[in-house]
Amino acid sequence: MNVTIIGIGLIGGSIAKDIRKKGLANKIIGVESSKEIGSRALDLGLVDEISELKIAVSESELLILATPVDISLQLIPDLMGMITQQTIVDVGSTKWDLYNSIETHPKRDQFVLAHPMAGTEFSGPEAAVEHLFEDKVCILCDTQENNLMHLQKAKHLFRSLGMRILLMKSEEHDLHAAYVSHISHISSFALALTVLEKEKDEKKIFDLASGGFDSTVRLAKSSPEMWAPIFRQNKANVLRVLDTYIEKLNAFKEEISKGNKIELVELIREANRIGKVLK
Amino acid sequence: MNVTIIGIGLIGGSIAKDIRKKGLANKIIGVESSKEIGSRALDLGLVDEISELKIAVSESELLILATPVDISLQLIPDLMGMITQQTIVDVGSTKWDLYNSIETHPKRDQFVLAHPMAGTEFSGPEAAVEHLFEDKVCILCDTQENNLMHLQKAKHLFRSLGMRILLMKSEEHDLHAAYVSHISHISSFALALTVLEKEKDEKKIFDLASGGFDSTVRLAKSSPEMWAPIFRQNKANVLRVLDTYIEKLNAFKEEISKGNKIELVELIREANRIGKVLK
Repeated sequence: MNVTIIGIGLIGGSIAKDIRKKGLANKIIGVESSKEIGSRALDLGLVDEISELKIAVSESELLILATPVDISLQLIPDLMGMITQQTIVDVGSTKWDLYNSIETHPKRDQFVLAHPMAGTEFSGPEAAVEHLFEDKVCILCDTQENNLMHLQKAKHLFRSLGMRILLMKSEEHDLHAAYVSHISHISSFALALTVLEKEKDEKKIFDLASGGFDSTVRLAKSSPEMWAPIFRQNKANVLRVLDTYIEKLNAFKEEISKGNKIELVELIREANRIGKVLK
Repeated sequence: MNVTIIGIGLIGGSIAKDIRKKGLANKIIGVESSKEIGSRALDLGLVDEISELKIAVSESELLILATPVDISLQLIPDLMGMITQQTIVDVGSTKWDLYNSIETHPKRDQFVLAHPMAGTEFSGPEAAVEHLFEDKVCILCDTQENNLMHLQKAKHLFRSLGMRILLMKSEEHDLHAAYVSHISHISSFALALTVLEKEKDEKKIFDLASGGFDSTVRLAKSSPEMWAPIFRQNKANVLRVLDTYIEKLNAFKEEISKGNKIELVELIREANRIGKVLK
């Protein structure tokens, strides 16, 4: 089976590495809008060749759409027009807008909406790593609208990467993703901006970076080209979660400002419950 | 040399482990307000004996004060009254209030204000780990007011734990700590509260926990008994940073809500600069 990966960055490149390692494809074809990124992906051995979208599609059985979510949305109409029997699997972080764009398409059943929940704060083909997806969760959305053969191909791919598959509706996915992934990124970006604005003496930031700051701010290194479109596509959910988050910060502000010892301990103790939920 | 550790939790216990491993003390005496915690620390071999404060002080050369910062503030007057030639090193996360409480004391020069910047989200003697401080920074505050012999003893301790020493004023420490440690914890607690409130179906939180949520929310497991007093003692700085943080979140809210693509990318790109500062 030939596989085409459209967008060979952190996610596309990491999928390519595992596909090669597990021997899932005879040939991996890369499609890249940037010639320079394409040639870096080729040099890194992530793909066997770089090709035009149309040619790549015609030569492949499985197409993996791993571009930023705004680009994916733009590409989908063309892509749907090009396929014959191929399976398309998109691996972006938002699903509802994509779902709406394909819902009534005659080849809807060949398009599998997937979100392999894994990543790092790095981007580009150099960020691709093996085993990125191992023991992580892959959400597949609205799969009742998929043809079984195409769905099985997608499931086989993600299971081969070591992922556990979870099914939900696109709408539900976007709501959950806002809570457990999108807000974490905004929280981290805002934290970075706060520190950068106030700490003029940057040497001191580095020196003091061991107080828990590293882990909360790690995600602030994440790519704007990837994340801005995610926040825009998931606008309603993200804004709702952001409101709640600011509300909770204001609760802390109030208790600290009033010097309320018991209430402050209570807030933190309530937050501690997250440990039980996550373990 | 005998060393007394007052408060044998995550920090006190981890210091005890390294002191023992490096052979820095003949005997490690533990002082604990809770009998039960004291006996657990003894069972874990963190200390050689548990003793009353007064006896422990009289038998030791070096006293390490590792209680929550509110307790430290309460203990200091008694402790200062008990010492003769001993060195006291406090290892709490706030320094300004402690500094003010000892500033004019005749034995001020025996009290070294330290903040070894290391920790985990866990607490209690069972949370103690070896090498917690290795390659981390230890801030020593207002050391020009210390007697050289006492200061050298503290420096030797932290260098033996593998730490790099950085000097600053207590007031400056508290400001920086608010930016790089205290706000990270509030950010994380508030994130946990947000998700806990809205995600009624807790199974789903677990399933989706791989989208970056884990690292930003890790600190939300931290102890209320340790952190509430820190926020209260560093109130003015923490409130100021919290205001800036909420301002930055509102900036994200505005750009997302208006659908401003370029401005949103710009905000994230600005936040990305933190990567250069931290590396």
